[in-house]
Amino acid sequence: MPSFRITIAYDGTDYVGWQRQAVGVSIQALLEDALRALDGRDVRVTSAGRTDAGVHALGQVASFTIERAVSADALLRALNAHLPDAIRVLAAGEAPPTFHPRFGARAKTYRYRIWNDDVISPFERRYAWHLTGDLDLGAMRAAAALIEGRHNFASFQATGASTQTTEREVFASRFDFHASPADRQSLLLVYEISGSGFLRHMVRIIVGSLVEVGRGRRPVEWIAQLLASKDRTAAGPTAPAVGLFLVGVEYAGALAALS
Amino acid sequence: MPSFRITIAYDGTDYVGWQRQAVGVSIQALLEDALRALDGRDVRVTSAGRTDAGVHALGQVASFTIERAVSADALLRALNAHLPDAIRVLAAGEAPPTFHPRFGARAKTYRYRIWNDDVISPFERRYAWHLTGDLDLGAMRAAAALIEGRHNFASFQATGASTQTTEREVFASRFDFHASPADRQSLLLVYEISGSGFLRHMVRIIVGSLVEVGRGRRPVEWIAQLLASKDRTAAGPTAPAVGLFLVGVEYAGALAALS
Repeated sequence: MPSFRITIAYDGTDYVGWQRQAVGVSIQALLEDALRALDGRDVRVTSAGRTDAGVHALGQVASFTIERAVSADALLRALNAHLPDAIRVLAAGEAPPTFHPRFGARAKTYRYRIWNDDVISPFERRYAWHLTGDLDLGAMRAAAALIEGRHNFASFQATGASTQTTEREVFASRFDFHASPADRQSLLLVYEISGSGFLRHMVRIIVGSLVEVGRGRRPVEWIAQLLASKDRTAAGPTAPAVGLFLVGVEYAGALAALS
Repeated sequence: MPSFRITIAYDGTDYVGWQRQAVGVSIQALLEDALRALDGRDVRVTSAGRTDAGVHALGQVASFTIERAVSADALLRALNAHLPDAIRVLAAGEAPPTFHPRFGARAKTYRYRIWNDDVISPFERRYAWHLTGDLDLGAMRAAAALIEGRHNFASFQATGASTQTTEREVFASRFDFHASPADRQSLLLVYEISGSGFLRHMVRIIVGSLVEVGRGRRPVEWIAQLLASKDRTAAGPTAPAVGLFLVGVEYAGALAALS
């Protein structure tokens, strides 16, 4: 009964998210279908994070146990042959049966892309939030830095979500600004955040709040006030899923070498 | 009767190409539909190049004449409101009625993207040709340089195409190699070619031939032999449309300022 760990990339545009749902196609269901075809039985796949509908992944990590003796390379090829090309297994390796992609994770990194110009490139329409009008990039950068550190992120959690604790540590929270490669006049804002763990919608609510600062509707210090208030209704709107990417997941010690 | 010139980007994946066809949806038809809605009459749109099915554009140029008096800004907004988000008008300006986007062009630039790794990223599947196995990048670079200059490109023209002359001038023909931004281990090959004009399938047959050299199936000098032979059957296969982008079109003098 070998256990495997895989690294997966997916274009989330046409899916209902990682987790199996009553209606719509999920990444988890497609992976489990591919594994059933390979292993001849039901296989349960666990991931490092349940990305929402429309959210993308560059380096999602998942694990499962199958009965069939198969090499990691053969497994990778068999899964990719079954999966639609919007979902690719990038790497596969054997893992200890105790490996859990979520509980074992030391850090996760997300990226959020914003296209700030009158017209959005057709090549960005599936991969960036389109915002027109001026954004104060300096203020957004300063506000992003306030997110770093160990905080209670209760203000940045989806309404109705229930978790035992809303305290998380954010290792880095930064904006980079690029002229678009396709069109030098456009501006692509790339926000990256890495942390010990994330609450439901946390990255998207942070981005929605940072944009409020960029719009000049709120001062930079408002972000510190939000962290102190622990009140979801105080924060900015949830940024749309289209711009969000799970970049990667880090593990400690021997597990780190498996990716 | 104002005449306009527009710069358009499109994701060609889901279209039959620039030109109106009996079956399938074309970029030209969608633009003409949008202009009919705006102008209340049939409008004929001419472009700088008839990109094939699946080929993309970052800066296609088109022109047309309408009856309605409208500013270039209002025209841009009205067209984008009508068009699907896979097609965007990036710029619009009034043009002399004598402006012809193809005959007036001084240079066109195309880009061809190749993803060279075992697994292709889901984010590249619509925008790059997926090639596995080793490619001799130095040989491809040397072979690409042989394309530069004024040559008879008869060997690099689609079978059955009829043009008055197959002589063209290529100003630049170059490969760049990148580690993919999404995954440092993957390699993205970006070929750029600019020239006075291009024959049907010319860029794709050149790329198909350069890949033959990269595979080690042909020596670098074979490209010079192909140019001399003026025989389509001697050249490499036509590379698929998925990796091809019309980057931009250049015009001389006063017209250059309109883009």
